[in-house]
Amino acid sequence: MKKYSDLSPSPRIIMTPGPVEVDPRVSRALSYPILGQFDPEFTAIMNETMEMLRELFRTSNRWAYPVDGTSRSGLEAVLTGLIEPGERVLVPIFGRFGYLLAEIAERCGAEVLAIETEWGTVFEPAEVVAAIDRLQPGLVAIVHGETSTGRMQPLAEIGRACRERDVLLVVDAVATIGGAPVETDAWMLDAVIGGTQKCLSVPSGMSPITYNDRVEARLLKRKRIEKGIRPEGYEDADPTSFIRSNYLDLTQLQDYWSPLRLNHHTEATAMLYGLREGLRLALEEGLDERFARHRLHERALTAGLEAMGLERYGDDASKMPIVTCIRIPDGIDGEAVRGQLLADFGIEIASSFGPLKGRIWRIGSMGYSCRKSNILLVLAALEAVLPLHGALIRTGNAIRAALGIYAEEATRRQA
Amino acid sequence: MKKYSDLSPSPRIIMTPGPVEVDPRVSRALSYPILGQFDPEFTAIMNETMEMLRELFRTSNRWAYPVDGTSRSGLEAVLTGLIEPGERVLVPIFGRFGYLLAEIAERCGAEVLAIETEWGTVFEPAEVVAAIDRLQPGLVAIVHGETSTGRMQPLAEIGRACRERDVLLVVDAVATIGGAPVETDAWMLDAVIGGTQKCLSVPSGMSPITYNDRVEARLLKRKRIEKGIRPEGYEDADPTSFIRSNYLDLTQLQDYWSPLRLNHHTEATAMLYGLREGLRLALEEGLDERFARHRLHERALTAGLEAMGLERYGDDASKMPIVTCIRIPDGIDGEAVRGQLLADFGIEIASSFGPLKGRIWRIGSMGYSCRKSNILLVLAALEAVLPLHGALIRTGNAIRAALGIYAEEATRRQA
Repeated sequence: MKKYSDLSPSPRIIMTPGPVEVDPRVSRALSYPILGQFDPEFTAIMNETMEMLRELFRTSNRWAYPVDGTSRSGLEAVLTGLIEPGERVLVPIFGRFGYLLAEIAERCGAEVLAIETEWGTVFEPAEVVAAIDRLQPGLVAIVHGETSTGRMQPLAEIGRACRERDVLLVVDAVATIGGAPVETDAWMLDAVIGGTQKCLSVPSGMSPITYNDRVEARLLKRKRIEKGIRPEGYEDADPTSFIRSNYLDLTQLQDYWSPLRLNHHTEATAMLYGLREGLRLALEEGLDERFARHRLHERALTAGLEAMGLERYGDDASKMPIVTCIRIPDGIDGEAVRGQLLADFGIEIASSFGPLKGRIWRIGSMGYSCRKSNILLVLAALEAVLPLHGALIRTGNAIRAALGIYAEEATRRQA
Repeated sequence: MKKYSDLSPSPRIIMTPGPVEVDPRVSRALSYPILGQFDPEFTAIMNETMEMLRELFRTSNRWAYPVDGTSRSGLEAVLTGLIEPGERVLVPIFGRFGYLLAEIAERCGAEVLAIETEWGTVFEPAEVVAAIDRLQPGLVAIVHGETSTGRMQPLAEIGRACRERDVLLVVDAVATIGGAPVETDAWMLDAVIGGTQKCLSVPSGMSPITYNDRVEARLLKRKRIEKGIRPEGYEDADPTSFIRSNYLDLTQLQDYWSPLRLNHHTEATAMLYGLREGLRLALEEGLDERFARHRLHERALTAGLEAMGLERYGDDASKMPIVTCIRIPDGIDGEAVRGQLLADFGIEIASSFGPLKGRIWRIGSMGYSCRKSNILLVLAALEAVLPLHGALIRTGNAIRAALGIYAEEATRRQA
């Protein structure tokens, strides 16, 4: 038999828009001995996780729990529960993950009404509202933080407009949750999907979601309990409109996450330990304090990049505070630079997708990865490596510029 | 803010049919620092995991990789990829998880042709073959190890019959993989779905699957690459028959697990570390040696239960070697006994579902949980607790009987 070696991943400084470095406290939580899924100690952990998720999503929704799968499992769970064939779904697209929402909706049988705006920008909320009035969708699905372009879409006006028109609003907050404000209730978002491997610094593999009563009412019309655990005398609300997925059926998932504890899947114990710890870390830090930390390190990063003379990509007004996109200088092989950063410095930054492939680099500053030493290391390494690849940058000022931002902040805090 | 305490799960002796105790080496692997999903070190780990899965499934199939979700995500991924609306799917049912296969198939739009046999038994293979000839399905979906009743279905004859008739055979081996032989190629199984949280002793949250060229050919007819990562000029094979799930679309998953590395989800890094370590442990032990270990401890367990005078549930010839079902003695509150075992001894055993709820206990002896000390502890605790609840059992012989089995085995090994 071929011998497989001991696991020994090299240490990495991960400055991509996800997955990012895992907080060591989360890593430790992952390694704790497991409990059975119906062990009272474990169901207490499930309940605590729900409580903490409500705080994270800033909602009083009853339902806030993780779907056991990577982020897109949460997106699909919400969309497949809400979309019946022929449903008119408006998807405002400003990057790759908008296409993903359209794709999932289409696979659910939606009539997808896509509107697009130039990559590197976001929609004026009024444009989306006008499209709602023109196209009359039953549901709007939109990305909050579009990591492919590094832009963040303002949602409050769109939320209010949807509520006034009784249109459901589903928001992909996979990239922003825990790193930038996501105000589920205040912005009137009906369903929000988060991710773990970005600003929460928990490994990929779970997707926390929340949804309100409006969404639940729609789901319950399609409720179906599987044979084998169906209570005596139970009948489906409507025997034809059932949700097409069993694994991602939110009506079954919420029964499992409720005091009923109706058996569905076997909850992913270790991952739930990790999510709980990631949430605990975020709430201990304080969400507002955490958002401020992300903005501070972003300022230091962008100051350093600017000092090198690197050009930011995209519209500054809608820049995500946790992803910084820079144009790859003309004539430079972006992948060769990324390769050297990884091989020689253990630093990972990202490229992008589709029309932006080979044109921009994306530097994430998310969660546990978002810290002073990482910002300085990525700047120092870029400044050292770019000239080796023939890029004409200004050297000698980037670290000074970044340290200047940190010094300013220290002074401000002392004041 | 409410303060959430440090995670501190109580140590448990988990003797259920899953989830079971996690091997400490797996727990350690879960806690290692993560790598980016396209880091060459990480894609090497993905490739190694595929190699090890081929050994586990005893197959030369190209495709063997985990789906990121709990076991039923693997079941649904295979079924939703193969079933188009109206597909005739035969599901031979001998317990709760047979109903689950029928349920998933129905949600995929199949015309489900269910045949049932008495719980506590399995099908004569000839019965299934006759049903295939009578009902002419395009696909047969069947459970290998049915944990709800503790029975294991022989599959070799059914596999051969399906192949001869060009019918696809999909097997749920969630409970048996790694604990009892699952001979994918020798038994001519077209697709097999395994679980992690049972005989592999990895936490729940991934579902390893394998499928052959026959399955792949069917999947590829429905292939669709999502917009945003679709290569220039790419067109769907058939623009109407695409798979209805994006998250569980095996055509996209296999592109992600192939050298193409076409971006789909973000692989669940920590869980993959854990799965790799669980596979390494299984292969280091040797699969045949591992199956023999499970049978040995089962013999010791059943000898001890018999010595107490407890009655086994179900047909002995089809008993799973990794789950032992016993009838709850008349007049005894099964849940009260389980509750005391957990609260006082930290031992978890299981109840069952549907018609067997309150009628049987199920004791798992799977993976890392399947060891001498656990077998003796569960026997000693049962012998101590049952009389407290009024059960008339024979005391004083169970441990002696179990130790006798171990002594016999030691003698046999020395010979």
